[in-house]
Amino acid sequence: MIVALDAHGTDAGPEVIVEGARAAAADGIALRVFGEPGELAGLEQVEGVEVVPAAQRIANEEEPVRAVRAKPEASIVRAAADVAAGRSDALVSAGSTGAAMAASLFALKRMRGVHRPALAAQLPVPGGPVLFLDIGANAEVQPRHLVQFAYLGSAFSQAVLGVIQPRVALLSNGEEAGKGTQVVVEAHEQLAATRGIRFAGNVEGRDIPAGAADVVVTDGFTGNVALKLMEGTARMFAGEVREAARSNPLAIAGGLLLRPALGGLRRQLDPNVSGGAIMLGLRGVAVIGHGSSSGEGIANAVRLAARAVEERAVERTEALLEAGGVLRRRRRRPPVEVS
Amino acid sequence: MIVALDAHGTDAGPEVIVEGARAAAADGIALRVFGEPGELAGLEQVEGVEVVPAAQRIANEEEPVRAVRAKPEASIVRAAADVAAGRSDALVSAGSTGAAMAASLFALKRMRGVHRPALAAQLPVPGGPVLFLDIGANAEVQPRHLVQFAYLGSAFSQAVLGVIQPRVALLSNGEEAGKGTQVVVEAHEQLAATRGIRFAGNVEGRDIPAGAADVVVTDGFTGNVALKLMEGTARMFAGEVREAARSNPLAIAGGLLLRPALGGLRRQLDPNVSGGAIMLGLRGVAVIGHGSSSGEGIANAVRLAARAVEERAVERTEALLEAGGVLRRRRRRPPVEVS
Repeated sequence: MIVALDAHGTDAGPEVIVEGARAAAADGIALRVFGEPGELAGLEQVEGVEVVPAAQRIANEEEPVRAVRAKPEASIVRAAADVAAGRSDALVSAGSTGAAMAASLFALKRMRGVHRPALAAQLPVPGGPVLFLDIGANAEVQPRHLVQFAYLGSAFSQAVLGVIQPRVALLSNGEEAGKGTQVVVEAHEQLAATRGIRFAGNVEGRDIPAGAADVVVTDGFTGNVALKLMEGTARMFAGEVREAARSNPLAIAGGLLLRPALGGLRRQLDPNVSGGAIMLGLRGVAVIGHGSSSGEGIANAVRLAARAVEERAVERTEALLEAGGVLRRRRRRPPVEVS
Repeated sequence: MIVALDAHGTDAGPEVIVEGARAAAADGIALRVFGEPGELAGLEQVEGVEVVPAAQRIANEEEPVRAVRAKPEASIVRAAADVAAGRSDALVSAGSTGAAMAASLFALKRMRGVHRPALAAQLPVPGGPVLFLDIGANAEVQPRHLVQFAYLGSAFSQAVLGVIQPRVALLSNGEEAGKGTQVVVEAHEQLAATRGIRFAGNVEGRDIPAGAADVVVTDGFTGNVALKLMEGTARMFAGEVREAARSNPLAIAGGLLLRPALGGLRRQLDPNVSGGAIMLGLRGVAVIGHGSSSGEGIANAVRLAARAVEERAVERTEALLEAGGVLRRRRRRPPVEVS
């Protein structure tokens, strides 16, 4: 098992990459780390870690597709190509999300019969994460895309998150089948008639944090807005509680006494625990970590990628899509060779 | 000033209507309360309050448009008709949101030149509420609808919430002008060329709780999902903190000490404080309270409606739309002035 790790793009700089790579290597995961050797001091000496020089980088501000095409030597592009060439088994990046999506799509290619790959996040919810997709790969979708997202999410939830018969729901503005945009209403109809997944109907925004489903499917526009709103609301709430716990001596004492008990919530909301978002619907595994990842976050992103490979997530996803009969009908295209 | 109050549909029953009407009447707001006189014991004796018998009611489960048409004697339909006939000045209901939207639209009518009325919520955010629309009147919109929503929200924020030059933003999956669905991208272009409002560009989900804008505009699908997700996330967070504050004796002591300092946050998140959602783009004032309203919530909904009438929100909205040149009746647009 070898994971290709992009060393560029973390907010905290290459130190978290070094720390994360060490921790993952200690778990027995071999790594090929793409970055500037001078910035990754000491990593060469770690057993199972190989540093592959790649000085070029893609910044968050760059237009992703153009940048990925224009910079074949960028660390994310090199790392993705490494997986495509079979030298590594999975890709991990905590750099520009757009660039990581574009690079992994170009290099790893769409799964045969998949219309659109989707980016899935693990939402921190009491009782275990909710897999939420699409969070930004496709701002606009058609009903058949949402149907495939349900299968992509269900397969990943089962294979990698270990959920038995995951409940898959469609995000809408009402629980009734007829609620939502025309695209959502049609997707609901199609999902209600599918097999191989456990379709739980529509859920509303308030049902997500309540854990009403294991997988929640939506378009990339709504998903992106919802994910960031949830993060922002949790941050606002935490800030207000922190503020209150500083407001007077009694409150300060109360905050200190309560602090240990809040550790579980802090850990639940820490994006470093889940390891990051996952590109689903590709012919390989690609994990996109939070730019703000700590060393632990990087290590968990690598572990998540390794688990996806070990659990044969890609093959199991293909099998589920096939069994569900929701693959795109091949027209006259010749079979695409995986390079 | 007379407010027509629908007495049916609150989760807690008619008691909160009685309590709320008493409190509002004590502020000098006259009320015509539509409901079952037998359920509204004592209200007849309150000065300034008149109980108008209306036994029929519309439940949450009923299809709103059909129910409003089929039940001319329903309290919400009678109350809306009362405003349309000029016997009352504004409508307040805490019953079925769909029925209240339909009844107010049919009776009060769209403002001249407005494509689609929208439902606006006041989101509880530190530093004052954010006016957020549409939260469910229009699941699908066109760019010109979003443009008008910006004017509707801006006028209300200014006239009723007292915000001077409110910053109006468009909700999207990225801050750049080119981000979003095609509808959002086109709306952004049009808004950037408008006058009379202070367009602040796109905001992302995380910017809403951070108070990055005073008015945030989106379609009714995304708005409904976002509003409920924010409520659900706040509830989850509060539940987890409460849980932690029960988990061991030290934490219990800490929770008790911290409790008074958290009062501000509790009050900020209490939907009873804002008074409810507002239908914008009608020829009259309609406030739709939370079904879970307390007596204070009902009183605040009535006060919000009365303030909208006093501040001439409808007339000022018409004037702003007119000045912005975004009314429908204008077929040929005046030249756009870049200020």
